[in-house]
Amino acid sequence: MTVSDCTFTQRDGAVCAPAGFRAAGIACGIKKSGAPDLALIVSELSAAAGAVFTLNKAQAAPVLVSKERLAASGGRARVVAINSGCANACTGEDGLATANAMADAAAAAAGAGRAEVLIASTGVIGVALDRNKVTSGILEAAGALEAVTGGAAAARAIMTTDPFPKAAAVTVDGPAGRFSVGGIAKGSGMIEPMMATMLAVVTTDASVAPGLLQRALTAAVDVTFNAISVDGECSTNDCVFALANGASDAMLSDGDYDLLVEALRHVCEPLALGIVRGGEGATKLVAIDVTGGRTNAEAKQAARAIANSPLVKTAVHGADPNWGRLIAVAGRAGVEFSLEQARVVIGDTVLFERGTPFDDRAEQASRHLQQAEISIGVDLGTGGRGAARMWTCDLSAEYVRINAEYRT
Amino acid sequence: MTVSDCTFTQRDGAVCAPAGFRAAGIACGIKKSGAPDLALIVSELSAAAGAVFTLNKAQAAPVLVSKERLAASGGRARVVAINSGCANACTGEDGLATANAMADAAAAAAGAGRAEVLIASTGVIGVALDRNKVTSGILEAAGALEAVTGGAAAARAIMTTDPFPKAAAVTVDGPAGRFSVGGIAKGSGMIEPMMATMLAVVTTDASVAPGLLQRALTAAVDVTFNAISVDGECSTNDCVFALANGASDAMLSDGDYDLLVEALRHVCEPLALGIVRGGEGATKLVAIDVTGGRTNAEAKQAARAIANSPLVKTAVHGADPNWGRLIAVAGRAGVEFSLEQARVVIGDTVLFERGTPFDDRAEQASRHLQQAEISIGVDLGTGGRGAARMWTCDLSAEYVRINAEYRT
Repeated sequence: MTVSDCTFTQRDGAVCAPAGFRAAGIACGIKKSGAPDLALIVSELSAAAGAVFTLNKAQAAPVLVSKERLAASGGRARVVAINSGCANACTGEDGLATANAMADAAAAAAGAGRAEVLIASTGVIGVALDRNKVTSGILEAAGALEAVTGGAAAARAIMTTDPFPKAAAVTVDGPAGRFSVGGIAKGSGMIEPMMATMLAVVTTDASVAPGLLQRALTAAVDVTFNAISVDGECSTNDCVFALANGASDAMLSDGDYDLLVEALRHVCEPLALGIVRGGEGATKLVAIDVTGGRTNAEAKQAARAIANSPLVKTAVHGADPNWGRLIAVAGRAGVEFSLEQARVVIGDTVLFERGTPFDDRAEQASRHLQQAEISIGVDLGTGGRGAARMWTCDLSAEYVRINAEYRT
Repeated sequence: MTVSDCTFTQRDGAVCAPAGFRAAGIACGIKKSGAPDLALIVSELSAAAGAVFTLNKAQAAPVLVSKERLAASGGRARVVAINSGCANACTGEDGLATANAMADAAAAAAGAGRAEVLIASTGVIGVALDRNKVTSGILEAAGALEAVTGGAAAARAIMTTDPFPKAAAVTVDGPAGRFSVGGIAKGSGMIEPMMATMLAVVTTDASVAPGLLQRALTAAVDVTFNAISVDGECSTNDCVFALANGASDAMLSDGDYDLLVEALRHVCEPLALGIVRGGEGATKLVAIDVTGGRTNAEAKQAARAIANSPLVKTAVHGADPNWGRLIAVAGRAGVEFSLEQARVVIGDTVLFERGTPFDDRAEQASRHLQQAEISIGVDLGTGGRGAARMWTCDLSAEYVRINAEYRT
């Protein structure tokens, strides 16, 4: 199957949109508020599993445990357990023991082998995760698993201060049959907080070997979750998990790599954009397209620098078509850049090209910046074909208020 | 002379504190407000000159012209001309011609050779600098040059939205005689704005060869101006200039390198800290000391990541002793880091050490964070001796307000 032979139908749904998955989201008392704080996602069949983990060197206990189990299973998993309200990070040996107990409880509850489990935690760091609460919560969730509303319940249970749950699903039809991909994610937000964390789980009922799933997941994450930034921070707990259980008739092999990436992207992109839209204090979604880089990697480096620039993000917040800040960030991004050939476009309005500013067009660009969805284009002027897209949000006083609140 | 043989006496003063320098600051109409916008600093004698320029690839016309003249003079200069209110950046060929006219006017007004001049501009970018205003302003300033109040006037004339002028001076006494170093700087702030720009001029009446001056200036800038961050941005116009005119009896040769660095540091550090204190929306000065890095460079990379972290800067603003954010940033800084051996200190309070949080000390740490001057220590836990210090300020809602204001 190739991408052009297939139709992609975006639809409501979450991790149970593909066949053979059940999920639950319950409250087990980790959050003092009594809000849902434990999600369990179970595949009826053994599933190929892939994962992308935070590159932060201060890795939380659940990250270490998930890596170990995934290696031990040779890339297979049947159950994912996630708690919110406590990140189980910077918690030492005791935290590692709790993470292992959490994984063992999830594997047992799903009737899976010890290694066929992935876990994640999100919330405050440096605080012990209550072992009894999380393991008895997993037992309770296992009794509540179902396929119709379970995915939405799981999406709610992994939220911290996300303003809304994030779920997406797509059905792919093509010559080799129909399969679905579904997913849930949580984004950046915190109350007692610590750091912006993101987690996502993506499921599919296609049949995929673990190696192919891992490669396709990495590629899809690169252009979705790894192409967003709320504030340039990188947490101790970030992970994206993918499970492929083969419950549909669709068998994907190495030749279907592009198709699988595209199918995963159809779910990961709306989840990633949901994280940005729900970013702390965010009022606008900003797509940044950088072109004219020597390489795609250089274009991405420049796009990331722009996406993280407080001067750019405050200008967007104020609907100020301040193209000079975009030029200045591109110039300091550590990549090849030619001021003489550079170009800045806001919406459809070219504001700077070949050394010439067009300040009479500022009003038009400002009108675009007053929208909720904004596009910014910067050409680095090297003549190269390197291109990349990043998504970010604006920087508002509300971001400062949320993150400056005194925690103790 | 070695450093320990000398006494360093910090005193009031600016670029005219050393003998043989005169300065002026006048209003020539570039700023619509009528505020001072042109500074001229002239040495009576030909002086060795050094300079450190922005690494931004979008370099403003005055940066290009100053580099060219400094190379042509073989590291000598007699006059520095600086305008505020317009950065003369992204202004194409015409901007370059204006910058050259500005340099020619300054050289002529000071009776200096064509190459013995340095210029700088700061303010809005992408807007043409009025050639008549700046050149006739230089003529007028040349008539107003004097040594008693001229330095302070120059410090005022280079301000944009700096909340206060920044000047510093030190007198050095030692076996080989007495010499002085003086300086002025402007920091991050903008009205119609564009980007945070910093400029500084440092003068000394010691006799120093150009090569030694350049090496010592680079070293002093590395631990002062290059060790501060308001928002991680890097402008198109940043420069630091140093002039050494030999008007005192002190002759410094290669063996006095450490002494010269120390003397320059005595002036550059208070100027740099003034820039941070006057940073946009800043209410606190934060010193970040990173230790336990594999190398000094790795320690500085981690310190810079912490200094630029919006989550750290908002936590400081809210007096939240949120050590987890410091660990998370150190872990993502791209340098060697050991969570098991890492340590976080706020003020005198150890909050995290050898995997153990000390959250009962949060109240004590929070009291320190309520001060105007804050110290944060992070040990990367590698066992190495790499260390670095950075200074930054907190991130406040006022920063957002200043930078989100609609410019058009």
